[in-house]
Amino acid sequence: MSGQRAGKHAHLRPLDIRRGRIEMSHGGGGRAMSQLIDELFQAAFDHPALQQGDDCAVLDRPEGRLVMATDSHVVSPLFFPGGDIGSLAVHGTINDVITSGGRPLWMTVGFILEEGFPLADLKRIVDSMAAAALEAGIAIVTGDTKVVERGHGDGVFINTTGVGVVAEGLDLSGSRARPGDAVLVSGFIGDHGVAIMASRENLEFSTSIRSDSAALHGLVAAMVAAAPDVHCLRDPTRGGLAATLNEIARQSGVGVTIRESDIPVREEVDAACELLGLDPLYVANEGKMVVVCPAASADALLQAMRAHPHGRDAARIGEIVEDPNGFVEMETAFGGRRKVDWIAGEQLPRIC
Amino acid sequence: MSGQRAGKHAHLRPLDIRRGRIEMSHGGGGRAMSQLIDELFQAAFDHPALQQGDDCAVLDRPEGRLVMATDSHVVSPLFFPGGDIGSLAVHGTINDVITSGGRPLWMTVGFILEEGFPLADLKRIVDSMAAAALEAGIAIVTGDTKVVERGHGDGVFINTTGVGVVAEGLDLSGSRARPGDAVLVSGFIGDHGVAIMASRENLEFSTSIRSDSAALHGLVAAMVAAAPDVHCLRDPTRGGLAATLNEIARQSGVGVTIRESDIPVREEVDAACELLGLDPLYVANEGKMVVVCPAASADALLQAMRAHPHGRDAARIGEIVEDPNGFVEMETAFGGRRKVDWIAGEQLPRIC
Repeated sequence: MSGQRAGKHAHLRPLDIRRGRIEMSHGGGGRAMSQLIDELFQAAFDHPALQQGDDCAVLDRPEGRLVMATDSHVVSPLFFPGGDIGSLAVHGTINDVITSGGRPLWMTVGFILEEGFPLADLKRIVDSMAAAALEAGIAIVTGDTKVVERGHGDGVFINTTGVGVVAEGLDLSGSRARPGDAVLVSGFIGDHGVAIMASRENLEFSTSIRSDSAALHGLVAAMVAAAPDVHCLRDPTRGGLAATLNEIARQSGVGVTIRESDIPVREEVDAACELLGLDPLYVANEGKMVVVCPAASADALLQAMRAHPHGRDAARIGEIVEDPNGFVEMETAFGGRRKVDWIAGEQLPRIC
Repeated sequence: MSGQRAGKHAHLRPLDIRRGRIEMSHGGGGRAMSQLIDELFQAAFDHPALQQGDDCAVLDRPEGRLVMATDSHVVSPLFFPGGDIGSLAVHGTINDVITSGGRPLWMTVGFILEEGFPLADLKRIVDSMAAAALEAGIAIVTGDTKVVERGHGDGVFINTTGVGVVAEGLDLSGSRARPGDAVLVSGFIGDHGVAIMASRENLEFSTSIRSDSAALHGLVAAMVAAAPDVHCLRDPTRGGLAATLNEIARQSGVGVTIRESDIPVREEVDAACELLGLDPLYVANEGKMVVVCPAASADALLQAMRAHPHGRDAARIGEIVEDPNGFVEMETAFGGRRKVDWIAGEQLPRIC
């Protein structure tokens, strides 16, 4: 922060980041809130619109159609192998914006903080968000901070809302899957959910399984360049691959057939799932993309994906089929077939 | 909802809006979540992008520079005289977007629901949001739903993020106040905060004082048309008029002088403040705008404001002055002067 900025709160002691905690006054609209915003948020999220200090951010006119996506994050625990709620909040919203085939540009951040939350943890989260945003080339342009009384929240909840642009001619949607289309996935499934569960349960294998949390804008840009006729992208978060395929089937009025043996699942994730009584198909991912594309484009797309670090383990896992019932079915490793239904309830709460 | 839509969950009983409650499964990414989104949210927020069912909304290319604003809402109680958390969430974000002088276009909504929250209350809130958005001509285009365990939230928190456009040539900011400028306010101050406090404390006068919660896009459009050289707009929410004037003073490096006798405060709000030990200058508003403009434009602006239902009681309350200390001072009704400082802490928590 500049000397001028530091001087704004010259009559207050600087925030005690190491030992301080969130107090109700940090959400009260007065000097304490202003200090928190300046010394913690603006110091980390360095964008002219944010530094301006207005209640909104004025930005350039975007080149293309606009895309908006929003995601609130309530993951528990806040810190987990491979990430934390901060990086997750940035990655999650970017990955929603790019399911349009577009490019993320700007992001807003809304914090709901619980009284008593350690400032050191908040700083760690904020720094993680800033690093994730910088790496993804997305600017955090405006934000909001609320504080709720102890016992009325859970440490920190973060909403991120992203705006991006999508070029004319690209028309991606979960409603565009057609019989004969290929179904691909960009890599190993289940890592995020199992990493969260393992760190919740303090399981031994928790050290070896890390969340896949990542922003996939680079991968998607490469994919769209290789196959601009791609029909559908969707990141399989809550409800996992199973929920995502069922959503696409329902939106498009088609069926989906997948082959168990072609679905990339890490051995240790498979083992952990068995131990925890989970099915990797239903476990959340935070750095994967499900792809539906014309069969003729599948090879070019796979090649482009595998050339990108986030798509190295991409695989073709199935096909879109005609089915008025909209069923998702799987050819099992043992040669049988089974229906892959939605889960009726939740398999893993507070996963993202 | 169309027959096709209703048919999507034909194998599930429809949501029991009257007696049902939020369960963890409503945030799990499975069928229960999908049903909640379809039967409650999509039924109320009727926009093609939302109905599309994708994880993001693709929109037209906006005509002008983009404006973004975000606001999380944690108000307690959820329902209060003059509004509820739903209408407040829509109004609040619109009022932030238009502080740029721009026009709101699109909004995202993120719900964080607590397990056990009554569906009937959620429906009332969602319907209120839909009505507020419709009245304001802003479209709710995409959303997100999370559920946290009982005791880890507080019924419902709502994030709304708005996008709008601002015409070339308009350049409003809290940093543009200049010595000699006039300071106006669009009407009576303190109504919202006092209505909230009164309904929290079950005070007798709670029936007569209503929140001023309102979307001011129409008022601002009229103001910008009448005086495109207006320097600064800001809605005095948390921290009230005092915080807003101090923010502007700090951003612009100027002082502010206001006259107590010119500040519109309802008699009953004044009386309630006395009873509750509050100062109306520090009480939140949710349907007011503070305006800084060149002195030469003040009369035209006041006239335009008073011609609009939301600006009927607009008043000129003071001037911007040179002051390297950035103080806000008030000429009291008794002829003295006093400094109007920020509050150090919170006067009213959970007010918005």
